[in-house]
Amino acid sequence: MVYKIKFQPDGRVIHVPGGTTVKEAARLAGIVIDTPCGGTGTCGKCLVQVISGSTEISLSDRKFLSEDELLEGYRLSCMLKSSADSVVRIPDETRLHVQKILTYGEEKEFKVNPTVEKIFLELTPPALDYQVSDFENLEEKVLKLTGKPVYANLKAIRELPHIIRSSDFKITATLDDGELINIEPQDTRNECYGMCFDIGTTTVVGAIVDLNTGKEVAISSRMNDQVIYGDDIIFRINLTINDKNGLSKLHNKVIEVINTIIEDAALQAGISRNKIYSMTAVGNTTMHHLLLGIPPQFIASAPYIPVVKELVKIKAHDLGIEIHPNANLRVLPNISAFVGSDSVGVMLASQLHRGDDIRLAIDIGTNGEIMLGNKKRILASSTAAGPAFEGIHIRHGMRASVGAIESVHIIDGKVKLGVIGGGVPAGICGSGIVDAISEMLKEHLIDETGRMAVPSFSLFKDGHKDITITQRDIREIQVAKGAIQAGIEILKKELGIKTESISEILLAGAFGNYIKKESALRIGLIPSMGLERVRSIGNAAFVGSKMALCSKDAIREAIEIAKNTEQIELSGRPDFQEEFANAMSFPVTNSDLQYSRVSA
Amino acid sequence: MVYKIKFQPDGRVIHVPGGTTVKEAARLAGIVIDTPCGGTGTCGKCLVQVISGSTEISLSDRKFLSEDELLEGYRLSCMLKSSADSVVRIPDETRLHVQKILTYGEEKEFKVNPTVEKIFLELTPPALDYQVSDFENLEEKVLKLTGKPVYANLKAIRELPHIIRSSDFKITATLDDGELINIEPQDTRNECYGMCFDIGTTTVVGAIVDLNTGKEVAISSRMNDQVIYGDDIIFRINLTINDKNGLSKLHNKVIEVINTIIEDAALQAGISRNKIYSMTAVGNTTMHHLLLGIPPQFIASAPYIPVVKELVKIKAHDLGIEIHPNANLRVLPNISAFVGSDSVGVMLASQLHRGDDIRLAIDIGTNGEIMLGNKKRILASSTAAGPAFEGIHIRHGMRASVGAIESVHIIDGKVKLGVIGGGVPAGICGSGIVDAISEMLKEHLIDETGRMAVPSFSLFKDGHKDITITQRDIREIQVAKGAIQAGIEILKKELGIKTESISEILLAGAFGNYIKKESALRIGLIPSMGLERVRSIGNAAFVGSKMALCSKDAIREAIEIAKNTEQIELSGRPDFQEEFANAMSFPVTNSDLQYSRVSA
Repeated sequence: MVYKIKFQPDGRVIHVPGGTTVKEAARLAGIVIDTPCGGTGTCGKCLVQVISGSTEISLSDRKFLSEDELLEGYRLSCMLKSSADSVVRIPDETRLHVQKILTYGEEKEFKVNPTVEKIFLELTPPALDYQVSDFENLEEKVLKLTGKPVYANLKAIRELPHIIRSSDFKITATLDDGELINIEPQDTRNECYGMCFDIGTTTVVGAIVDLNTGKEVAISSRMNDQVIYGDDIIFRINLTINDKNGLSKLHNKVIEVINTIIEDAALQAGISRNKIYSMTAVGNTTMHHLLLGIPPQFIASAPYIPVVKELVKIKAHDLGIEIHPNANLRVLPNISAFVGSDSVGVMLASQLHRGDDIRLAIDIGTNGEIMLGNKKRILASSTAAGPAFEGIHIRHGMRASVGAIESVHIIDGKVKLGVIGGGVPAGICGSGIVDAISEMLKEHLIDETGRMAVPSFSLFKDGHKDITITQRDIREIQVAKGAIQAGIEILKKELGIKTESISEILLAGAFGNYIKKESALRIGLIPSMGLERVRSIGNAAFVGSKMALCSKDAIREAIEIAKNTEQIELSGRPDFQEEFANAMSFPVTNSDLQYSRVSA
Repeated sequence: MVYKIKFQPDGRVIHVPGGTTVKEAARLAGIVIDTPCGGTGTCGKCLVQVISGSTEISLSDRKFLSEDELLEGYRLSCMLKSSADSVVRIPDETRLHVQKILTYGEEKEFKVNPTVEKIFLELTPPALDYQVSDFENLEEKVLKLTGKPVYANLKAIRELPHIIRSSDFKITATLDDGELINIEPQDTRNECYGMCFDIGTTTVVGAIVDLNTGKEVAISSRMNDQVIYGDDIIFRINLTINDKNGLSKLHNKVIEVINTIIEDAALQAGISRNKIYSMTAVGNTTMHHLLLGIPPQFIASAPYIPVVKELVKIKAHDLGIEIHPNANLRVLPNISAFVGSDSVGVMLASQLHRGDDIRLAIDIGTNGEIMLGNKKRILASSTAAGPAFEGIHIRHGMRASVGAIESVHIIDGKVKLGVIGGGVPAGICGSGIVDAISEMLKEHLIDETGRMAVPSFSLFKDGHKDITITQRDIREIQVAKGAIQAGIEILKKELGIKTESISEILLAGAFGNYIKKESALRIGLIPSMGLERVRSIGNAAFVGSKMALCSKDAIREAIEIAKNTEQIELSGRPDFQEEFANAMSFPVTNSDLQYSRVSA
């Protein structure tokens, strides 16, 4: 049987075979439903409201929905199978929106000295008494000009004879670390571009950089479309285990996203993709593996082993990436299964490994990576903190996209909200939750153990919706911030220092950029210190990727950082549970004490 | 209009649009007509007899055929266009038959030390307290066993995690000069194969070699199907100039042939193509370029410039060659536009570059390459001698395939023939012509200037055919042997030696193997010396390819040979024409003198 499904308020109609999930039907109708869990009925995020038609109630519906909601026709769209012609409303908060994405990071000054360079050559035409092959001719000239030998890429070699003769033996050779990757007639040295990428679990950002100047000429970003298979790396790794095509599905998705970004950026910059001669990428170790088509399966379970940690250099074209066909992609090295090349990028950008002072860098994306140290020694750890701060597992949580509550103030008992894009809120994102909890702590609506004074706290309410913070939300945030806090405690202990010895805290990543520092301090996400010593450094992982694109020295440094950083595996430590338990509580502040004293 | 063409004696019928050449119609009907000139109407080899139907006479027909032949319905099939339903007979000598191909050469003893080696590794399983990536794990073990670092091929890396865990961390790694190209569970060191190829203008030979022992386990050869586009390199180079798809047509053809040989050899040996981990190839410079898809255009005209001379290493898979997907193909280096890696192979196999004595090596394939020297100095030249010795431009000439007269004796005025495969002769091949001329010289049917005593000399005649040697055939051979002889004279002059200083003459290639040494000496193809100092060394170019497959040292030597051999460009020398004019004559022998004296 084929059923007609009509989606509201869009009015779109699709015909699907019986048994098709409503989520899938929506996708076919061109509406993407946000399914953090990959459509496995385990996150409760893909709610739709059935106006008429199929309304079978699944076990997952029972788990996530109240009796009232069930009566109103709410169902999880990933579980609801079409068994009749239906009309279904897809609420705004269920839809996948393009997210507020952090593209710029804190730029460091660095010498522009990329692996890729263009050299203009005026060759001597061969003759009966000057017998050199075309490649020899080029080779000798390059050696003379640069003092370095050149080796050949076959695709470039194939074009050599016609190009040199079409341009009176005046050509521009593009070399990547001694490899001849391109030849063009005449002098084209001014057109030399590369692209740097940050492949996040949730977001992919890429920029075209002029390799002559190191300046960005275009930037573009997209949701990492792998999210349709699940929001966090564990869901995606599981897909590679449970679906024999899972790895290639995920691999192809991220390549598609990269190609879309390339196309968009090239269009913005008005340059041909063929003039992009080099590419770098950073990402967590799972993203790294998925980008390269390497099975990430053994990252997920003890003893947590990545397949490869070293810097990987490969033809971008071999992965299906549409830039110059001979361009090399360099993926920066990983440190361990959970501390990836994105962390290496953060350290590179923040120069943590060069400082005299001990600094702490925290990169909260979908996971939370923490790095502590200076030029003598750096420790790094990863904590599974991310999802809650990205709105996952939060009752009305959502990503930091249009409609998300991103800031909360309680002034004189009244709630004031900041909403991304303005207007009526659809849910609450990470920085909003942290703000809300911080404010609720100040107002003593929560005690230091996280217990709420009221069953739930309403942030916004109108005829249609009631956005609340629940006791369970508080617990989720406590677990997440507890993990990071405990990680920091362990790293401090390992390094043998106290908070006073940390000269600065650097907050990297989107969350680190948008979060209010006061709130982060208030809930104990970061160690207690003066606000002036806490600094947001933007998308530092991306900046690290860009530095590697523009500088051979940065690549060498990245390799050194990856080799020298000591990874501390938290799950393997007997003291982690204790630290974690301690860190679950919210800090007692002076005002609390004062209040206590007053109430005593 | 569509016409019906029936081919006899096969009885095959094909329908073709008006204007289709009979040659093309035959091809569509599955009958391959031998067209040495590539179907340009310039060699007169593709004769068919029209029984009924289209009989239009072309200018080429007028040039190559007598009035009688035209009346009998003979036409050049490459020029004859279908303009009516027809019945056409394709004579046996017009068909392309598989040739007698030389596969074995003179084997030299050499140390088996290939670039590819298999190493058995028992890895330590990682643990929470033994944190290594899978690649690191392997890398450290290899370093320990071999003292050499290993770098990763991404395709191999992708398979690493599952393979090591499926085999209890006991694996066999295949390394090619430090590159990890394959991983297999358990110990598979005994299955390690490579393939060496000789890519001739006319013939391609390939063998599977056990890389543990250096022994051939299967050999296969095929006509180089590029011959359908023309017999000699000039026709093929012209195709790359005149047809924008010419290069890819030729490239694809040779790759097809190589894949057929691989398939056949693998079947013979009973091994999987996937166990072939390495490949080497030699060929003349044009074949080298066509194999690699590099435009050969500038080889053909002054100043005769190849695109690349260096050794090329590339993934065989990237050319579409179906062996292990990560196997590297190494094409040995060229010396110049006309002295290719096949000559490097001959020198490697004959160890010309190592001898104290001065030796002369002659490799007559479709071209004639000559090499003269010893460990102090080696000179090499190429002459356009080939086609005549392969039966091209000879009235009844044919390749050395079934039906070819390969030897001729005149005893008491009677002609005795040796025919390949026995039976009635269809034509005469190179060794047969050289024999015939040698015998005719002895019988004073030709004088030393090449003038024939009779207008034509019949070797065989029956009711259907009359195989003759014509005055023009003699001239063709005089030009061909004159070119080689003059080349040898120039090399001797350059080296400052006389024939007496040459300790040995080595005859390489198919022609060099089948030719009667006495006859070669008699017609002056090789310098006059004792027969015991003339030696056939078989397909030495192929042996050189095999040595490179089996030995790193041989690869290094090949590079040295290519670098150190001095190429003497004959066309650029003022003395060549004089030497060539002298060399056109046949030598005067004692018996001639005696005869002269008697007749005086």
